[in-house]
Amino acid sequence: MMHPRTFRVDYDHVTSVVCVVGSGLNVNLNRSAPPGSEFFSVKSTATVQYSISPQPRETSHLSPIPLKGTSALLIRMSRASDYENDGKLSIRYYGEKKDVLGSVLLHLTAVEISLDVDADRDGVVEKNNANKGSWKWGSNGHGAILLVNCDSERMFLKKLDSEQDQVSKVSDLKDMSVMVLRTKGPAKLPKGYKLTMHISQGDAESVRVFRARSSGVESNLLQKLFSHFVKEYPLVLSNEVLSQEVPYLGGISEMKFYVEGLRFPDKDFDGLISINLSLLEPISDGLPETPIFTDTAVFRVAPWIMTPNTLQPVEVFVCSTSDNYQFLKGMRNLITKSGYKLKICHEYMNRGDRWMQDELEFGYIDSPHHRFPVVLDSPRDRGLKDFPYDELLGPDFGYVTRVAQREDVSSLDSFGNLEVSPPVTVNGKNYPLGRILIGVAFPTATKGRNMTKVVQDFLWAQKVQEPVALFSDWLVVGHIDEFMSFVPAPDRKGFRLLLASPDAGYKLFRGLQRDGHGQAKLFEGLKDEEQQTVDEILNDKGLAAENNYVQSCIDWNRDVLKRELGLDDEDIIDLPILFKLLMEENDNNKAETELRAVAYYPDMVNMIVLGKNLGIPKPFGPKVNGRCALEVEMCSLMEGLGLSCTFIDDFASYHKKLGEVHCGSNVRREPFDFKWWNLEM
Amino acid sequence: MMHPRTFRVDYDHVTSVVCVVGSGLNVNLNRSAPPGSEFFSVKSTATVQYSISPQPRETSHLSPIPLKGTSALLIRMSRASDYENDGKLSIRYYGEKKDVLGSVLLHLTAVEISLDVDADRDGVVEKNNANKGSWKWGSNGHGAILLVNCDSERMFLKKLDSEQDQVSKVSDLKDMSVMVLRTKGPAKLPKGYKLTMHISQGDAESVRVFRARSSGVESNLLQKLFSHFVKEYPLVLSNEVLSQEVPYLGGISEMKFYVEGLRFPDKDFDGLISINLSLLEPISDGLPETPIFTDTAVFRVAPWIMTPNTLQPVEVFVCSTSDNYQFLKGMRNLITKSGYKLKICHEYMNRGDRWMQDELEFGYIDSPHHRFPVVLDSPRDRGLKDFPYDELLGPDFGYVTRVAQREDVSSLDSFGNLEVSPPVTVNGKNYPLGRILIGVAFPTATKGRNMTKVVQDFLWAQKVQEPVALFSDWLVVGHIDEFMSFVPAPDRKGFRLLLASPDAGYKLFRGLQRDGHGQAKLFEGLKDEEQQTVDEILNDKGLAAENNYVQSCIDWNRDVLKRELGLDDEDIIDLPILFKLLMEENDNNKAETELRAVAYYPDMVNMIVLGKNLGIPKPFGPKVNGRCALEVEMCSLMEGLGLSCTFIDDFASYHKKLGEVHCGSNVRREPFDFKWWNLEM
Repeated sequence: MMHPRTFRVDYDHVTSVVCVVGSGLNVNLNRSAPPGSEFFSVKSTATVQYSISPQPRETSHLSPIPLKGTSALLIRMSRASDYENDGKLSIRYYGEKKDVLGSVLLHLTAVEISLDVDADRDGVVEKNNANKGSWKWGSNGHGAILLVNCDSERMFLKKLDSEQDQVSKVSDLKDMSVMVLRTKGPAKLPKGYKLTMHISQGDAESVRVFRARSSGVESNLLQKLFSHFVKEYPLVLSNEVLSQEVPYLGGISEMKFYVEGLRFPDKDFDGLISINLSLLEPISDGLPETPIFTDTAVFRVAPWIMTPNTLQPVEVFVCSTSDNYQFLKGMRNLITKSGYKLKICHEYMNRGDRWMQDELEFGYIDSPHHRFPVVLDSPRDRGLKDFPYDELLGPDFGYVTRVAQREDVSSLDSFGNLEVSPPVTVNGKNYPLGRILIGVAFPTATKGRNMTKVVQDFLWAQKVQEPVALFSDWLVVGHIDEFMSFVPAPDRKGFRLLLASPDAGYKLFRGLQRDGHGQAKLFEGLKDEEQQTVDEILNDKGLAAENNYVQSCIDWNRDVLKRELGLDDEDIIDLPILFKLLMEENDNNKAETELRAVAYYPDMVNMIVLGKNLGIPKPFGPKVNGRCALEVEMCSLMEGLGLSCTFIDDFASYHKKLGEVHCGSNVRREPFDFKWWNLEM
Repeated sequence: MMHPRTFRVDYDHVTSVVCVVGSGLNVNLNRSAPPGSEFFSVKSTATVQYSISPQPRETSHLSPIPLKGTSALLIRMSRASDYENDGKLSIRYYGEKKDVLGSVLLHLTAVEISLDVDADRDGVVEKNNANKGSWKWGSNGHGAILLVNCDSERMFLKKLDSEQDQVSKVSDLKDMSVMVLRTKGPAKLPKGYKLTMHISQGDAESVRVFRARSSGVESNLLQKLFSHFVKEYPLVLSNEVLSQEVPYLGGISEMKFYVEGLRFPDKDFDGLISINLSLLEPISDGLPETPIFTDTAVFRVAPWIMTPNTLQPVEVFVCSTSDNYQFLKGMRNLITKSGYKLKICHEYMNRGDRWMQDELEFGYIDSPHHRFPVVLDSPRDRGLKDFPYDELLGPDFGYVTRVAQREDVSSLDSFGNLEVSPPVTVNGKNYPLGRILIGVAFPTATKGRNMTKVVQDFLWAQKVQEPVALFSDWLVVGHIDEFMSFVPAPDRKGFRLLLASPDAGYKLFRGLQRDGHGQAKLFEGLKDEEQQTVDEILNDKGLAAENNYVQSCIDWNRDVLKRELGLDDEDIIDLPILFKLLMEENDNNKAETELRAVAYYPDMVNMIVLGKNLGIPKPFGPKVNGRCALEVEMCSLMEGLGLSCTFIDDFASYHKKLGEVHCGSNVRREPFDFKWWNLEM
């Protein structure tokens, strides 16, 4: 029950007042009494309910009741009025000898007001949900959901819908959350009363509200033809207008509003937004009206969600360059065989930048009423810089980015360094949307590269895939996809973590040597590439030392992943991959050099995962009985999981440029079935 | 138990490793095995504990155990080593026919490392508290506490201590939280191992760490004399240095650190800070050392806390101006009588600005180890602008401010518009430190003045006195202290809320009229002030209408206060005070005018509360039998609470300038007994 509001009356005056059904008026009887009053009586028409406190002993309130210092009258109206002032209540005051000293006459008009949203998250705006004014996570939670309107209804003269303060197409409305103002009462409100919708200054940066002028009718053909949407959907609230009157339509009526999210949760924005609807009572000219009733609806802006390798692919993006025909052919075969759509980004758009993985990350936003993919554009900004905005952004395809200072951007800001795990449970805590994984320098490092703060802040603020920071600065390129990947599995947790493992590599090579294949050669059949025998590799003490270091770096990450994803050793598969260290100039101080790692032969863990089909960099390993021992080992490790390996030759066009299949591709995937608002937080 | 770390060994090598007591090493036996290994055995010295998984059937690990793909060895050390490499463990690998294929020899050195803080909040740093790595509110909570070092150890060439990156006086150390690094182990760590303390980039804006070079000895006379503190307390971590090596002292040793908070919780800072201590393992030159063990201590920065009228006063601040002798005399008498200290701010400092309440708010910060007052300086910045910094800031007297754009600052930013309630309980939720109260425009207002956002953000971010926004824009000056105050009470909730009430005023005047005192005069004895009779006031229909409006504004606040502080009508006392409306120019649009209220006669609710003594603006009301009827009523209302009223003539020097006693004074009070960290949040 709502707190009643203090209402003052004067004796010997007729006072008119509007009362919202469900709320009450609290009249201090003593305060409004004529001097010398000792008793009072109360009378009302049937629709007006009242109670007296302290409760009088008298059963009829028509005979005088002793007036006390604390005497108060609580008035309520049980249903909306048919006519203005159709409820009446009178108070009579008496002196010591029960002589009438004065009386109060109240004319009451009752209205029902409810600002309604989809607080139960079923895609439909229900009526006056008791929980609409707060937000709670979980399957037993409540509270409405808002999407950032980050797509663009137009493909030409493109602009994010959230950057324009008008509804430009009817299709734009489905990106917004419907909010309904339901009112019931007389044909019009008593003079001077009005309804106002309002938001706080803080929330106004994150939300905009439009009204549907034609209540409910959205598909008038003429309107569509002549794009009269701006007139049909006037802007009610925005950064510029925090409070605006909305019409009271009279009788039983519903007015539709469309609420649009403008920005994603971030370090300074928890994602919660309140929209208020108040009934204002007039005082007189030059004085602000008093809000006498406020209904509030709370929304949470939907977070940006990433999709792990275990989700079904929709389309695969690859760049076409002057030198990657071989690779493209391999990819096309794999993707066609797997039954997915291949989208090629041509050279005019990629400007020679082949690293499709690195410029962007596919994700999505979801609400009970609508869902669409959203690309996160990296601040990396090389040749593919314009691709996410120019090619991907469109109707029901959203776009978000974070702008960093040029000097703060490093190779670790490429999104080969941003991945997400499949769903996991860690010490009883569920992550049904998995956990985001990024790579940084050791927290103990006094120098080192990092993912830029604005992107990290954004990722952490989404909350639903709580990030884990791994150590990737030991690699020249510095991306976590150089040493790890996830593949689906029919058993255990539904997936395996694949880790590059020099130890596994050495073990395999030592086995080959023992079995008499020490002279088998790596890199056979590759032009311009010096071949290496197994014996040569095993005899290279320097290489062994370098790989010991690499193994210890990967083991460090292995321990973090086991702890933060709740994995056992049985959930992890070590892939036989060797690395080597290169001497690198320090970004900040050219005089200093640092040793960092690259893959010695194509880095098989850097694969593309398309359902049960894996596209793996062809390793060009030593051949035994005509088959590459690395491919054989890889296939044998994956076969047990029902996965099929396709080896793709990326040697010249990717591997030699320090990337592989995964770096050179990107997969848009189906969203999770699990709804983020059902997370228990 | 800490997760063991993956540790790689090579056969036919002696490997030395440091192991932290309490943590474990996980050796994958299969990975390090020579090709063809089928069995293994393990042997160790007494201080080295190990377990094999899967658990072998063999009881002795000296006879060969079958080697499986998942065979692993978990190694732990039970106590710190006396000497380097004093723990030994060997693994032997065997072929099919139990022929020895190779063996691993491990030399282990165990150390104990603990970064200790006062996580149990008793003022003493305990040893290795299990909860030190997290923070929990409440009397059953845990987690260390940090003060913002916002005082200044020096009174000359003053600077906030938090703004200098050195310890300038030994006394500065008590504003910091002690942190102790306890280590136990051999005289020195094996070659290349080192200890590093580190913080995240985000936390570095909010914290600084110093080290005590002379472990424990702080009072060397020579050091004091020559102020060698900078050398004695070297800066370890700061915004510039996120990670730094700290020495390992060897044997059983303790190293003391001092942690200093740099900023208060705010919209973008939740107040939590982590400090980490890692043991680094060397790899080789040019490669970053690997953190193999990290201990973390979490601190929360103490919030700024306000003190309500119900707390014991310490000192009272009042300005001296060319025209307030009378007022000052009245105040001095009251304060002296009440037994508190009067501090006068003279004209050279106040530059004619008499509104001591408005430029600053007294509060404090508290921790288990130390506590001191902190003044919040308003962005109002009139004549008293420099007073908080120049006069109040000093040793153990802190200072904090929020800087706003000039154009965003209005009269509502004066701290007469910032108050705090006594402790309350609202629907079962306890606010043992009360709730902050501020005044703003109606949320529905399309124009109107507000408290500036940076100050509001600061107040909300302190969390422990969750603010309530009231409506004060209806007043010309716009401060909540113009219509409300709190006084101590012996019963009920321990206090009463006093509200200005035109209705109570009219009731009193009507009673006077009825009793034949209609010709009694207000403002008697005041020069330059037109006297008014009770009859004249009651006949003024315009004034009555204005006061009806004022009453409705106050009633609106009354309802908010009842709801948000959990008050009943019996907790509220209405004081007989009339207002009048003035036509005001709109700040933004000079062509527009607005009606706003000022007190008609001295506004008695704008009082100073000094324990049981109230200093009340002398109302100059109508006299009955030689006594002012307003004073009589006031005394009668307060007497029941055991409070004594002193009426202070502030008419010419304050009331006529639109302020009263409260506006012209400020009280520094004792802090709460209740500790903020014991709040259940």
